[in-house]
Amino acid sequence: MKKIEGGVTAAKGFLAASAKAGIKYQGREDMALVYSEVSAVSAGTFTTNVVKAAPVKWDIKLIQEQEKAHAVVLNSGIANACTGAEGVAVNEYMAQTIATELGIKKEQVLTASTGVIGMQIDRTKLYKGSILLKEGLSDTIEAGTAAAQAIMTTDTICKQCAVEFELGGKTVHMGGMSKGSGMIHPNMATMLGVVTTDAAISKEILSKALSAAVKTSFNMISVDRDTSTNDSYLILANGLAGNAKITEENEDYEVFLEALHMLSQNLAKMMAQDGEGATRLLEVEVWNANSVEEAQLLAKSVITSNLVKTAVFGSDANWGRILCALGYAGVSFDPEKVDLYIESETDDRLQLVQDGVGTAYSEEIASRILSASKVTIIADIKAGEESATAWGCDLTYDYIKINGDYRS
Amino acid sequence: MKKIEGGVTAAKGFLAASAKAGIKYQGREDMALVYSEVSAVSAGTFTTNVVKAAPVKWDIKLIQEQEKAHAVVLNSGIANACTGAEGVAVNEYMAQTIATELGIKKEQVLTASTGVIGMQIDRTKLYKGSILLKEGLSDTIEAGTAAAQAIMTTDTICKQCAVEFELGGKTVHMGGMSKGSGMIHPNMATMLGVVTTDAAISKEILSKALSAAVKTSFNMISVDRDTSTNDSYLILANGLAGNAKITEENEDYEVFLEALHMLSQNLAKMMAQDGEGATRLLEVEVWNANSVEEAQLLAKSVITSNLVKTAVFGSDANWGRILCALGYAGVSFDPEKVDLYIESETDDRLQLVQDGVGTAYSEEIASRILSASKVTIIADIKAGEESATAWGCDLTYDYIKINGDYRS
Repeated sequence: MKKIEGGVTAAKGFLAASAKAGIKYQGREDMALVYSEVSAVSAGTFTTNVVKAAPVKWDIKLIQEQEKAHAVVLNSGIANACTGAEGVAVNEYMAQTIATELGIKKEQVLTASTGVIGMQIDRTKLYKGSILLKEGLSDTIEAGTAAAQAIMTTDTICKQCAVEFELGGKTVHMGGMSKGSGMIHPNMATMLGVVTTDAAISKEILSKALSAAVKTSFNMISVDRDTSTNDSYLILANGLAGNAKITEENEDYEVFLEALHMLSQNLAKMMAQDGEGATRLLEVEVWNANSVEEAQLLAKSVITSNLVKTAVFGSDANWGRILCALGYAGVSFDPEKVDLYIESETDDRLQLVQDGVGTAYSEEIASRILSASKVTIIADIKAGEESATAWGCDLTYDYIKINGDYRS
Repeated sequence: MKKIEGGVTAAKGFLAASAKAGIKYQGREDMALVYSEVSAVSAGTFTTNVVKAAPVKWDIKLIQEQEKAHAVVLNSGIANACTGAEGVAVNEYMAQTIATELGIKKEQVLTASTGVIGMQIDRTKLYKGSILLKEGLSDTIEAGTAAAQAIMTTDTICKQCAVEFELGGKTVHMGGMSKGSGMIHPNMATMLGVVTTDAAISKEILSKALSAAVKTSFNMISVDRDTSTNDSYLILANGLAGNAKITEENEDYEVFLEALHMLSQNLAKMMAQDGEGATRLLEVEVWNANSVEEAQLLAKSVITSNLVKTAVFGSDANWGRILCALGYAGVSFDPEKVDLYIESETDDRLQLVQDGVGTAYSEEIASRILSASKVTIIADIKAGEESATAWGCDLTYDYIKINGDYRS
């Protein structure tokens, strides 16, 4: 298993393109296309929000009814959520237009939108964009990168990742891109993301792998506890690597899952690090909980606490807030057994709490650790043997600035 | 039922005092005492946080084991939470010291602390404070106000309220104080609060009334979704009004409950309005839900959304975020039936959304409404007939400032 350059074009037979359609943003690319030369087995996970955007509803139906897909078309600027019957029609038009350009059926085109909720997308802009996308299709790393850039909204870094691994002697590639910076909360694939792979795999097993990978990656990050209306994480597998098709949970499946897991976790961490206004990536490890589920609940409770997040922003080792956030996670544990530690990439682990009570730690060292670009908080619950990790970021003045007037 | 001046000293036979004990803050009053001349039936509701402060554990035990209490001693500056066995001993010392001064038993003294988690309170300061508190006891409005001021931490306004009503021809008084500005989240009595009344009422019925009143007041506010380790809402009823003792859920109980409800809701709204860094009181009404519980879940989901809160701070009618927050509340509803409105005390109701889709409302008027000091958001779900209201505040730069370095 090795990390390689690139993103959605890393796997054999996948092309990408981006275009300036002017949907909302001016002077930047705001549409992206991912296309497989041969039709590909598809799977997806989506937001649990009751309010689902038009493209989410479209994709759920398509993935259920169609064995394979050929392309994913995406746009940034407008989310096509809360747009009623007109929004549904516009989304279908988006699929149809790109299908016409590519000479495929609209039922083979998955869609994804991100941006402002409640605005309608202009059909003429989609039409113009589709033509540009068709013209721009390329299998280069640059084309994949440009597609990843085109789906950014308040994101400040472009998120992509690719890996190479072996399945029965065949070299397999998997690459992905994602966007997400605000309205990020761990309760399903919380963002837009597209993964491509040339692995041969059945639809059922692909879907199973995606669900498993999401649980420990996108479902374990949070920027602001807001679960969006548009979250979609899609995967296309076109089989061009020539490996023996994976149709059961065998050894090949385990390798495939490991790759998908690594890729998803990488993309998820990039999203947490790039949380709106964030200055630090925050990692919370919970050790020795009674079950994985309880460890996850505890880790998520700390990662989502505004008070923990602001304390980290202020480099203030206010560990009482960490214990407090563990305490309202909805998990039963003995607070008088809990140990807390913090660490960074440059500083050793520092113990703040022993058996629920503060240690005589150095505030100076603690503050230095909490000033690093990546900060890890460790809570040892000493109840069982299961662990979990969650990722998030600090809460800063810039989060307020970005969200106090996002629409204008 | 009429609102009267004052707080915890409004009811007959209740005295209050405050003192500068220097527990953490210097140059300001930081201890408070509420004392009933005759012992009073007591009830309390407390935080659901697994991590409970020493005074919370003490009060839960006392209220369970003792029919009556005589006094409540409170301090600000240090929360006496996560302080281990020493914290438990210090809390008992706090009760014992004031009991000695008052010539009562320590088992008749309820305690409450608020402030930084994880620090120990100095016994000599408690001792000094207790002497001053005993000396300062008075039944004046001023004494009650000073007590309410002494328990403030990051609060900017002093929170008290009192009402007068009739029970079987007898005039009854009820007054209360509370503190709370950060670490406020609706899941039990989320703050410190003390209510006194001269009504005669049985312990069982008093406890029932308190639980009922909390559900639609303190449990419906949120500043930052952080449920504290110290939340306590205490009530003492000393019977000096001479009304026929309330021992069942009769008409008198309904009047008593109405008074307690009104008082609790007033204190709760003051806390929401005084949320850390807040510039506006935010009120969310959910109409026509299938059940009160669902209406409450929906209202709380909107009131706690960081994205809604920042949009209100920016006077930006970003209604998509409101629909989005309704959508992840964990309640099933049809988003294509939802109507949204906003209103303020100076502006008429403005409809933003009709059947899930944006109306052609004036952004200028919307922005003016959202700039008011009290903003109401109304979501009509059109599913059933039940309603609920939640209160909160906007999320601002000052919240970050206050919490980025609260300890120093």
